Amino acid sequence: MTTEMEIARSGRISDTVRCVAQREGIDAEVIREELAAGRLAIPANRVHLADNLAPAAVGRAVSVKINANIGASNVRSSLDEEIAKMKMAIDLGADAIMDLSTGSDLDEIRKRLIGACPVMFGTVPIYEVIVDRDVEDIDYATILKVIEKQAAQGVDFFTIHAGTLREHVALTAGRVCGIVSKGGALLAKWMLHHGRQNPMYEIFDDICDILREYDACFSIGDGLRPGCIADATDAAQIAELRTIGELTQRAWDKGCQVMVEGPGHVPFDQIQRNMELEAEICKNAPFYVLGPLVTDIAPGYDHITSAIGGTAAAFYGASFLCYVTPREHLGLPNLEDVRQGVIASKIAAHAADVGRGFPRAAERDRRLSEARSNLDWDKHLGEAMDPETARRMYTEACSQSTMPSDGRKDYCTMCGRRWCSVRINAEVREHLRAKTS
Amino acid sequence: MTTEMEIARSGRISDTVRCVAQREGIDAEVIREELAAGRLAIPANRVHLADNLAPAAVGRAVSVKINANIGASNVRSSLDEEIAKMKMAIDLGADAIMDLSTGSDLDEIRKRLIGACPVMFGTVPIYEVIVDRDVEDIDYATILKVIEKQAAQGVDFFTIHAGTLREHVALTAGRVCGIVSKGGALLAKWMLHHGRQNPMYEIFDDICDILREYDACFSIGDGLRPGCIADATDAAQIAELRTIGELTQRAWDKGCQVMVEGPGHVPFDQIQRNMELEAEICKNAPFYVLGPLVTDIAPGYDHITSAIGGTAAAFYGASFLCYVTPREHLGLPNLEDVRQGVIASKIAAHAADVGRGFPRAAERDRRLSEARSNLDWDKHLGEAMDPETARRMYTEACSQSTMPSDGRKDYCTMCGRRWCSVRINAEVREHLRAKTS
Repeated sequence: MTTEMEIARSGRISDTVRCVAQREGIDAEVIREELAAGRLAIPANRVHLADNLAPAAVGRAVSVKINANIGASNVRSSLDEEIAKMKMAIDLGADAIMDLSTGSDLDEIRKRLIGACPVMFGTVPIYEVIVDRDVEDIDYATILKVIEKQAAQGVDFFTIHAGTLREHVALTAGRVCGIVSKGGALLAKWMLHHGRQNPMYEIFDDICDILREYDACFSIGDGLRPGCIADATDAAQIAELRTIGELTQRAWDKGCQVMVEGPGHVPFDQIQRNMELEAEICKNAPFYVLGPLVTDIAPGYDHITSAIGGTAAAFYGASFLCYVTPREHLGLPNLEDVRQGVIASKIAAHAADVGRGFPRAAERDRRLSEARSNLDWDKHLGEAMDPETARRMYTEACSQSTMPSDGRKDYCTMCGRRWCSVRINAEVREHLRAKTS
Repeated sequence: MTTEMEIARSGRISDTVRCVAQREGIDAEVIREELAAGRLAIPANRVHLADNLAPAAVGRAVSVKINANIGASNVRSSLDEEIAKMKMAIDLGADAIMDLSTGSDLDEIRKRLIGACPVMFGTVPIYEVIVDRDVEDIDYATILKVIEKQAAQGVDFFTIHAGTLREHVALTAGRVCGIVSKGGALLAKWMLHHGRQNPMYEIFDDICDILREYDACFSIGDGLRPGCIADATDAAQIAELRTIGELTQRAWDKGCQVMVEGPGHVPFDQIQRNMELEAEICKNAPFYVLGPLVTDIAPGYDHITSAIGGTAAAFYGASFLCYVTPREHLGLPNLEDVRQGVIASKIAAHAADVGRGFPRAAERDRRLSEARSNLDWDKHLGEAMDPETARRMYTEACSQSTMPSDGRKDYCTMCGRRWCSVRINAEVREHLRAKTS
């Protein structure tokens, strides 16, 4: 069967491309060209697409997208809770869900989640591979069997740590945090134990064949991403990125779509260079970054450290931001953490779209600000990224103040009537209008 | 009496300069030179300094500082609550407090706050000027009397909107949000009503004389700062900035120290240019920015939108960040909002210091990450920017999981033992060590 990438290369505009183009308000021919060149991906497994997926695109030609990770673990898990997290994330605007479950009945969880998921859905198959075996016992057949099964369930994109080569592992010896990616650490241990090359690398062509069959998308994992500021942009990270660049081309040659995963923890001054390196080495394949976190010292607030890095990353080239919740590094997120993580990441994506002058991005800012300036609270709060939270805070402010809460006020909730710049500003405007008329 | 700036110009190193240099771990001669050139300010009113102030510096040669706004309003107020907010902000690392009170007994509030405030303390005198009179009734004598009284109470820096000229006001006519600064809006109304120039501009030399007497510092306010993305970097903002540049030189000529206030709402791509413009026009006077917020659409989360902009601003030239709380635009902050605002702003300041390679800034990141990598939770949580919140989240994760909480575990709180990259990484390291030894 022909893949979307091959259809695009042939010059034809598929229904999926047309659908994505309409959602983005962008010419379908532009989407087709970008997809054909590998600069844009539409992770859409045929099975999921035939069921309930509304396809979306990831790339520089379209708006910046965000992903929310969920998943039960054997430390803590409840399927209902994970489904609730997924629904909330999607309601708040998450463009993708990754199921990182490592505990309970993984098949059942995945099936239930995909069945309720209208956005692109990703997994990291190696997590399932080691559920009932030690890492040393991983073999090629098991890996392929797990990927095939998950693809048949409708997974749209797969994190495959195929770029983490045996010869790269020694480059991490001097790091402060070594290898922080679970997939990277597991594969490094396997390679050191067996004295052999990364199995994901060795069977990469076989994995391509499976993904091709379902037209699922690669998300080539950065098993050696820096896990702290001190390790950023080091030899291990860049060596792996070069291998990822080769694998990207190999997957494209097989007609498969590719996204490339990136850091991690990166100081603010190195973000632009990181984006340029990926673009150069991976030929502009869409860059999917985890963060980046611009400092290590704020556990409990890493949704903020990563919103800072994510804005800069997306401004300078990344197309896809993986959310980070406040509880990152400390525990698994609860519902409120998911809310905070999704909103922080959406802020970063939107701020980057506004900053790069993406068509129509700033229109919503203007609408909200016009409402704010007109003291039209209903519209103001309704245009907010999280109207529920904004409305709650506003209602609290009204109830704690001496203000009427019927909306017929001529000043805002903060300073009081005499000091209200919004009210005074309206008078200044009236004055200016009178003078010029 | 000679001012600190004059002492620095004469080549002498004062006790205050020596004290600041020690706190920053920077050569006192460097601080003296920067202060003499106006590139650094030490807002330290003689009265406050003689009482309980530990002086600190603001400028590119030192670490980025942050300010927390507090204040009772006639919408909502309680002195005890404001004191609690101030104490929490200082405990969490705020380098400055601004009292923006507009309600209750302003003198009593200010006195109590300064008496309990070991960090630099700022006000916006025009707020008090209009407490018991309409804006049209403001006169020169009243303004000077209020500033003199506040200076005698020990206020270290004063927001004076002297750069908002009569001829600039018409430039705001086409804005989406017009004038959002309270001081700017009040003065604009006064100017339109009287058909006369900004009183703060007219009596600027008299204000200099008062500030000189107490060696208090100017924070020249940007009454025309953009209040939304659509209004950023417009003609009104830049015209006012040019006047602020002239006033900066005039204050320096009088031996007074100056900080310059800046935006506001600025799209991410315009932040660098905004910082460069200020440096050029105001001859590198320390830039004190309110945000900047990189999008308008996230009321309820503006601590995040401003942490993003604040990091970029401080990386590109700002020296002082005014915090923004989650409740900005919606109501006055409560204690928890103050915590969120201070931490978000501290993250921005630190991330910028790390990004610009400020000496020793990244050392704390390294310490925390070493502890994280060694599963040394006590040290990890202890190095956190907000240890209390980090510890709470960690303890919750332990109690909700199947993990032992005695700290003797060999894996972290997130994924479970089998998937723990920190544990596996330790094994990989052991392997690498064995191979090379």
